[in-house]
Amino acid sequence: MRGAEPARDPLVVFTPSGRRGRFARGTPLLAAARQLGVDLDSVCGGRGLCGRCEVRVVEGVFPKYAIRSQADHASPPSPPEERVPGRGGLENGHRLSCHARVEGDLVIDVPPGSQVHRQVVRKPYQSCDISVSPVVHLHTVEPEAARPEAPRGDLERLLDALAREWQLEGLTCDPQLLTRLQAALRAGERAVTVAVRAGREIVGVWPGFRDRALGVAVDVGSTTLAAHLCELASGAVLASAGAMNPQIRFGEDLMSRVSYAALHDGGAEEMTRAVREAVDALVARLALDAGASPDDVVELCLVGNPIMHHLLLGISPAPLGQAPFPLATDRSVTLPARDLELAVHPGARAYVLPCIAGHVGADTAAVLLAEAPWEHEGTTLLVDVGTNAELVLSARGRLLAASSPTGPAFEGAQISCGQRAAPGAVERVRIDPDTLEPRFQVIGCELWSDDPGFAAQLGSVGIRGVCGTGIVEAVAELFLAGLIDRNGRMDGALAARSPRVVPDGRTHAYVLHRGDPELRITQGDVRAIQLAKAALYAGARLLMNRLGVARVDRIRLAGAFGSQIDPGYAMLLGMIPDCHLGSVSCAGNAAGTGAVMALLDADARAEIEARVRSVEKIELALETGFQDCFVRAMALPHASDPFPELSKRVALARSRERTAGPVRHRRRGRKARD
Amino acid sequence: MRGAEPARDPLVVFTPSGRRGRFARGTPLLAAARQLGVDLDSVCGGRGLCGRCEVRVVEGVFPKYAIRSQADHASPPSPPEERVPGRGGLENGHRLSCHARVEGDLVIDVPPGSQVHRQVVRKPYQSCDISVSPVVHLHTVEPEAARPEAPRGDLERLLDALAREWQLEGLTCDPQLLTRLQAALRAGERAVTVAVRAGREIVGVWPGFRDRALGVAVDVGSTTLAAHLCELASGAVLASAGAMNPQIRFGEDLMSRVSYAALHDGGAEEMTRAVREAVDALVARLALDAGASPDDVVELCLVGNPIMHHLLLGISPAPLGQAPFPLATDRSVTLPARDLELAVHPGARAYVLPCIAGHVGADTAAVLLAEAPWEHEGTTLLVDVGTNAELVLSARGRLLAASSPTGPAFEGAQISCGQRAAPGAVERVRIDPDTLEPRFQVIGCELWSDDPGFAAQLGSVGIRGVCGTGIVEAVAELFLAGLIDRNGRMDGALAARSPRVVPDGRTHAYVLHRGDPELRITQGDVRAIQLAKAALYAGARLLMNRLGVARVDRIRLAGAFGSQIDPGYAMLLGMIPDCHLGSVSCAGNAAGTGAVMALLDADARAEIEARVRSVEKIELALETGFQDCFVRAMALPHASDPFPELSKRVALARSRERTAGPVRHRRRGRKARD
Repeated sequence: MRGAEPARDPLVVFTPSGRRGRFARGTPLLAAARQLGVDLDSVCGGRGLCGRCEVRVVEGVFPKYAIRSQADHASPPSPPEERVPGRGGLENGHRLSCHARVEGDLVIDVPPGSQVHRQVVRKPYQSCDISVSPVVHLHTVEPEAARPEAPRGDLERLLDALAREWQLEGLTCDPQLLTRLQAALRAGERAVTVAVRAGREIVGVWPGFRDRALGVAVDVGSTTLAAHLCELASGAVLASAGAMNPQIRFGEDLMSRVSYAALHDGGAEEMTRAVREAVDALVARLALDAGASPDDVVELCLVGNPIMHHLLLGISPAPLGQAPFPLATDRSVTLPARDLELAVHPGARAYVLPCIAGHVGADTAAVLLAEAPWEHEGTTLLVDVGTNAELVLSARGRLLAASSPTGPAFEGAQISCGQRAAPGAVERVRIDPDTLEPRFQVIGCELWSDDPGFAAQLGSVGIRGVCGTGIVEAVAELFLAGLIDRNGRMDGALAARSPRVVPDGRTHAYVLHRGDPELRITQGDVRAIQLAKAALYAGARLLMNRLGVARVDRIRLAGAFGSQIDPGYAMLLGMIPDCHLGSVSCAGNAAGTGAVMALLDADARAEIEARVRSVEKIELALETGFQDCFVRAMALPHASDPFPELSKRVALARSRERTAGPVRHRRRGRKARD
Repeated sequence: MRGAEPARDPLVVFTPSGRRGRFARGTPLLAAARQLGVDLDSVCGGRGLCGRCEVRVVEGVFPKYAIRSQADHASPPSPPEERVPGRGGLENGHRLSCHARVEGDLVIDVPPGSQVHRQVVRKPYQSCDISVSPVVHLHTVEPEAARPEAPRGDLERLLDALAREWQLEGLTCDPQLLTRLQAALRAGERAVTVAVRAGREIVGVWPGFRDRALGVAVDVGSTTLAAHLCELASGAVLASAGAMNPQIRFGEDLMSRVSYAALHDGGAEEMTRAVREAVDALVARLALDAGASPDDVVELCLVGNPIMHHLLLGISPAPLGQAPFPLATDRSVTLPARDLELAVHPGARAYVLPCIAGHVGADTAAVLLAEAPWEHEGTTLLVDVGTNAELVLSARGRLLAASSPTGPAFEGAQISCGQRAAPGAVERVRIDPDTLEPRFQVIGCELWSDDPGFAAQLGSVGIRGVCGTGIVEAVAELFLAGLIDRNGRMDGALAARSPRVVPDGRTHAYVLHRGDPELRITQGDVRAIQLAKAALYAGARLLMNRLGVARVDRIRLAGAFGSQIDPGYAMLLGMIPDCHLGSVSCAGNAAGTGAVMALLDADARAEIEARVRSVEKIELALETGFQDCFVRAMALPHASDPFPELSKRVALARSRERTAGPVRHRRRGRKARD
């Protein structure tokens, strides 16, 4: 005869993790989850205030666990569960795990919204998934009241409560928060909420219960700043905004700002002040847009090219202006946001992504993080075109990075009729190979210049110049129309065929638009684009040679120019290596995306820091063969060049050349006077 | 037959540590010392620049180690040893351990001056030994030059060098120093010197070799600030200076400053700004006095009472103004000096000693550190008299602390003719029991008022008021002369005997000095001193009761008042408990001494932090019996009181009372109208 088995404690299984254990009746589900290490969120510490620990009781028989789970195996709903904040009560079967207690066997599902670490999709600014694993977490606690017979400091009573209620031991606290803590403890409520960073450091304090901590990701570009305000726990983007970089008054391009720093006493400090003020104003604007306060911001993540990175941190960019272009640091930098003069929460921290090399910045690190090329098989080339083109080649578990000295032509600078991509700039160009007449599109107007109603819709925006993508398309179309040859030489003889071709100094130019200002593409403009595209192509080629790959499988074009350029034109001009055209795509504002990812995800920071360390940094100027490759890349490609993917396109171009005479051999270009 | 023993490596013995080991010939002595963990200093890292690693070869036969040590068992002197900095060459037998190499058995003495941790005696400001175990240490290194083919950041090349040359791994660096590092690496010298704090964090950077890092200890008093500039490695005090606390314009005493903070919007911030500016100016002055720069200062140590502590740190003192007087923190606080708006080295850190309780501050912690009462057998009472009297009783391994509400009478405040201890203040008083005529001494003049030439020497200083010690002596002398009785009542009948006794409202006063201003000791003044001394005595008594001791073995009087008061008068008035008069002594500026000790010695910081945590904090107002004890302590003691040590003194007083009539019984004092 066997005696009755002793009654066993109920079994609780959490999904999706599958973690399980037996718990005494009366154990809160939250306590059970914590004991098992289940990823289950909570801010209020079991006070039924935050609703973050919501779970669902899964009903049914589970042979795998030999249990039946049913709703009444948990304690009856408690009053706090009936007034869950902002949700109008819990759905059927849903419970607050801090209040629901084990009364029998249970299968408990933790929905994604109740996990601290999660995947969320953030459509507003990009399309890829972002993981959320916040660096900063909120905890509400009730420190003991001060007692005269056992005097302890405010901070020490807070730390006691954090250890008691949250098992957070050995925390430090930014001394700048002591005043906030003092006020919070005396604000009439027993509870205070603190923001704990990396499980180690108190960086925020507020009176009472609080459910929301905000972060800001900023891409500090040399022309524009772009920023996103995010809720750190959910990853929600609450507001996005951009602003001009006020440093432009010290120099349009990066090198002129480096010169300003080098030539003017206090010049770097002036530029540092300017960019910090702009970031601060942007954060204030984002907060206003989102109905929040800059004081809610406890974490920032900043990226920028090396010069922006240095100026933001108050470091002179002068050494970056000459070889060997040494960075002040190639690690990530974490510092109090107040040291960047940002008026956010007094304990807020700013995290600045690492720069990769003297010409390849934290913005490229952010692109790398957003693109994660190592997750793709085959060879991926990332191209971020700005004043320089940053190139990262990923293949065979290796990452190679370089900066190619394209100069600012792709930004519309150093082009006779060039201007930044802004309303009024020509951005798309087509030239009829028969009539040699152009048509174009202007930023700020959806119609083509030969569409009816174009002038009306354009209105006061006017036609002001040609931006980077416009000049690239114009040069490609001049080539396709036979107006320039493979060496880029403009065919003056065509002046006889079209009044658009006009003498211009000792060469000829093509008049794209007659008006004020008149927009003409000069021989010099064509040369500038040839130099820029040759630098970009040669850089990519060199990286491929170093890695021993003959072709790339994917090309991702990042940055403002990269997101506007038509990949077909880019390949037609020979800007980028040969690649299946369908595999050339735009990465959008990948630097901004990467900054948001690093803001929201501690693991992403660790990953990109490790990746940046592993990047092989190539200084193109030192590579033997770069100069040769660069010179050879000056010509526009033709079908006999090793660009199979281009054959069709160039053949098309050839077929259109019927009115423009035969393409000259590139050797002859050397003899031309231009 | 036994083969020849293989030749063994030479034995090197270091004294005084006795550490020893065998080392291959050619090993530098510094390397041998490091391998054995011998405490031997070096800044330049073996470059023969700093002279800190000087040792002495001890010659002779040492049977204990079975070796003979002689000078030529070390390599011959090298050129750097012949130009040791600032010493005009090495003494005979002395060597730089970085350049002298092992060639045979050696006994090497490490003199105190070459040890990192050492005892030094600093006479200039106090008499006790101070240990030096610096929190910050200098290291000179030569980072590799930046190489374009292997780009690494400035910081990373520095960290590599620190790991390579000094085995310092995993250091962090204050981002504010990146600009300094950048400039230092480009200053034309390969070497840079860094200050490393606690072996973990880079807090200072300078170009080239550098041998001196400075620290400042500041005692932030409510009336005056006192600061000492020290060389961190040697412990030498290079300059000392004091300044008025500019917060005085917001209120003479502490409570009026608390009120100012509570009643004026931004009042606390104003006071914070004022005291920080004053500290900053003081640091600048000290640096100037010592021929140094504030930029050389990498470490500060600050102490102050709880209200000064809070205001310095930018924390509101308002909660300290009412029960339960909670501190914002009772830990030590370490923060960047820039967060205190101090213009010192950009990476400098400020260490603020812990406060003990709401009324017992970091200044008392510093007194405790300087006095180390736990090192004495028996019972020690520390008394630091300011606006309140801080009391610490040490016995039987326990420490009890309390603050006694003496009010500011001992500082000369709330006394009709009172003033701060400053030139022109009467500080010593004698009254002739026969003639009832006074004589006195004034701060700023060495003569007594009845000495010939007094007026001439006093000159323009004049006689302005009576400071704390002056009023204490005046009251004691009035008692000794029979002008007041044990209850403090002034005997108006004596007006008949002396024109010094004059009617004053409904009571009488004693005219100490006829002039402008006339200085008179009123009945109210006597009462104020009685209240103050009763509070002090009752506080001490309560601590003794709590600890179960009937008498104390030692009394140490700290602070400005404590260092001026004559212990005999203090005991005669019944300010302090009975104690052998020879065991009552002045601790000088013990708070300043403690601040210097904590500045120079990392171990002292650990010790005082642990001691402060162990202190039993007594809130006198909550102690049953305090009120009774206080009331009983109002009377002036007589021989029948349990003060054996006083018997002689009071008997003396009695013998002088012959002209003043019998002392009234204290019960009768209640009936007097005053």
